[in-house]
Amino acid sequence: MSNFISFFNELQTQNPHTKTKPMEHNSYSPFTQPIRCIVKLGGAAITCKNELEMINEEILQKVSEQLRQAMISSSEKPPGMDWSKRPGSSEICCNPDEFGDHSVMDYSRFIVVHGAGSFGHFQASISGVHKGQLDKPLVKAGFVATRISVTTLTLEIVRALAREGIPSIGMSPFSCGWITKERQISSADVSSVAKAIDSGFAPVLHGDAVLDEILGCTILSGDVIISHLAAYSKPKYVVFLTDVYGVYDRPPTESDAILLKEIAVSEDGSWSVVKPKLQNSIELTVASHDTTGGMKTKISEAAMIAKLGIDVYIVKAATSHSLRALSGDLRGGNIPDDWLGTVVRSST
Amino acid sequence: MSNFISFFNELQTQNPHTKTKPMEHNSYSPFTQPIRCIVKLGGAAITCKNELEMINEEILQKVSEQLRQAMISSSEKPPGMDWSKRPGSSEICCNPDEFGDHSVMDYSRFIVVHGAGSFGHFQASISGVHKGQLDKPLVKAGFVATRISVTTLTLEIVRALAREGIPSIGMSPFSCGWITKERQISSADVSSVAKAIDSGFAPVLHGDAVLDEILGCTILSGDVIISHLAAYSKPKYVVFLTDVYGVYDRPPTESDAILLKEIAVSEDGSWSVVKPKLQNSIELTVASHDTTGGMKTKISEAAMIAKLGIDVYIVKAATSHSLRALSGDLRGGNIPDDWLGTVVRSST
Repeated sequence: MSNFISFFNELQTQNPHTKTKPMEHNSYSPFTQPIRCIVKLGGAAITCKNELEMINEEILQKVSEQLRQAMISSSEKPPGMDWSKRPGSSEICCNPDEFGDHSVMDYSRFIVVHGAGSFGHFQASISGVHKGQLDKPLVKAGFVATRISVTTLTLEIVRALAREGIPSIGMSPFSCGWITKERQISSADVSSVAKAIDSGFAPVLHGDAVLDEILGCTILSGDVIISHLAAYSKPKYVVFLTDVYGVYDRPPTESDAILLKEIAVSEDGSWSVVKPKLQNSIELTVASHDTTGGMKTKISEAAMIAKLGIDVYIVKAATSHSLRALSGDLRGGNIPDDWLGTVVRSST
Repeated sequence: MSNFISFFNELQTQNPHTKTKPMEHNSYSPFTQPIRCIVKLGGAAITCKNELEMINEEILQKVSEQLRQAMISSSEKPPGMDWSKRPGSSEICCNPDEFGDHSVMDYSRFIVVHGAGSFGHFQASISGVHKGQLDKPLVKAGFVATRISVTTLTLEIVRALAREGIPSIGMSPFSCGWITKERQISSADVSSVAKAIDSGFAPVLHGDAVLDEILGCTILSGDVIISHLAAYSKPKYVVFLTDVYGVYDRPPTESDAILLKEIAVSEDGSWSVVKPKLQNSIELTVASHDTTGGMKTKISEAAMIAKLGIDVYIVKAATSHSLRALSGDLRGGNIPDDWLGTVVRSST
């Protein structure tokens, strides 16, 4: 994986304390009903690696379509909700007239969180926003530049979802007032996200530059946001959409890499591979993979969610496997043999 | 003025109760220091009327330049903070290397609020978002579409300011969790705006589609946001940048229209024209103007701010007059005879 992809995901690796508070510490949740699913749109999947600020339009469109299929039971595609012009076009994307007497559709409660991919990384890394020191002119400028880049991506994702008829609403963690303290989330009121969900919208959040009470500023990664939201909203399942089929025992570019299909997480947060049965110790091989792909971090975050009793599916975006994961087909029973991906679930 | 321009400003006229709570009701302000200025970038000034979603790039650039001159005492232009590509370009706008060992600059505390102009109006009016009924598919879609359109404009304004070296940060009222109750602001925590200001940023807010506790949803106009922010942050002055020289006694397109240079507001909120001395009653002529331009609403909002002891300048954007207003040159003493614009201030 390129540097572009890993930056917003790997910050936790640099500081192991970049964690959300676990659910057991939270007595109050503003979510009136449990939500169905939190989806991570991985930066590696929806943007073009190695090319600054380039969206993978084909994947984004397919991901949006699958999300719509998972959220709406009707086979009929609802009218689009992006009534704006695209750059360089004089026509609006979707026609409001299509709504006419369109009947009410029932949407499942989804939250979307996206990574940065080739947006935001360049601006954050060149200025060192994640390290703080907001009083430095370069860092302050980098903070501004990073937010411009990632909110550009957010807007495009919101628009892609809206074109599929998903009532998507962009909500930046910074604007929501989320703040960290030495990179740990210290204040992240989820009530406005809950109200958006209760009003029938699909909130779209993202890894963001945020204020930090000690450091001045830092980067809050999409994966940490998901852990935080999962703890409060107790989704039935969480899906990480990536650019590979799941978690492997070594970099998936290696020909003998083995896809880990099921990982069990025990109460103390330690995890082990249940399927397939592996001959060698997994820990070392995953650790070596981690230096390039942040997969150990991803498993750690997934394990923290799984500990709450929430199944996590890590799966390749825009495939039949991702559609099954998003639709909730994998819940409960066994994972079908023909499904490619990684399930992380509680062993208890 | 076209319909495009007036929609986000005129909603108060449709419902006279669309007001913010006056300052005397608020005991707590999260602003640690008073801010210097709140600036309204009028939709009519920064977008092209009658053309859907078209920015007036020349005016926006000039406005951004004047804001930079007003915010930074140094005559040297700081390096740009928009390190993203523009659509269709492979180059980033500004070069981070320019920061090198750039010294710390002192920025005055400004808040920017922009109107919608030709962004958002079409989407909001065709769906009736301002009237509520979010359970209707068309209204929900309109809510999504309106937010896509106005946040597109916000992003472009944030980028234009950042290119001038202003540390601008987009903050949507919806994402900030601001909520209305029958179109009155019922919950609009300004603490995240205050924190952004305290951290040295220039927050950029905008008229937005928001949730309403009774109606389901509505449009919160930029002018109401300014009144609310002014009550909490107590700026030294407020500037409304528009596409005409100020407030006239009749539509400024009429050849005998007279520019009202000074309006005094008494304690009960009533107002009268101090300069120039007018022969006819002003109330009727302004009222007739109001049906097309929302100027009575604008005076009412300005009067509410002036009542707090804050001078309000209504002035044509991107002129020498707007630069003097933004720079605070008009504060205290008399208004120079060669300054074109309208001052609204407390008579006490």
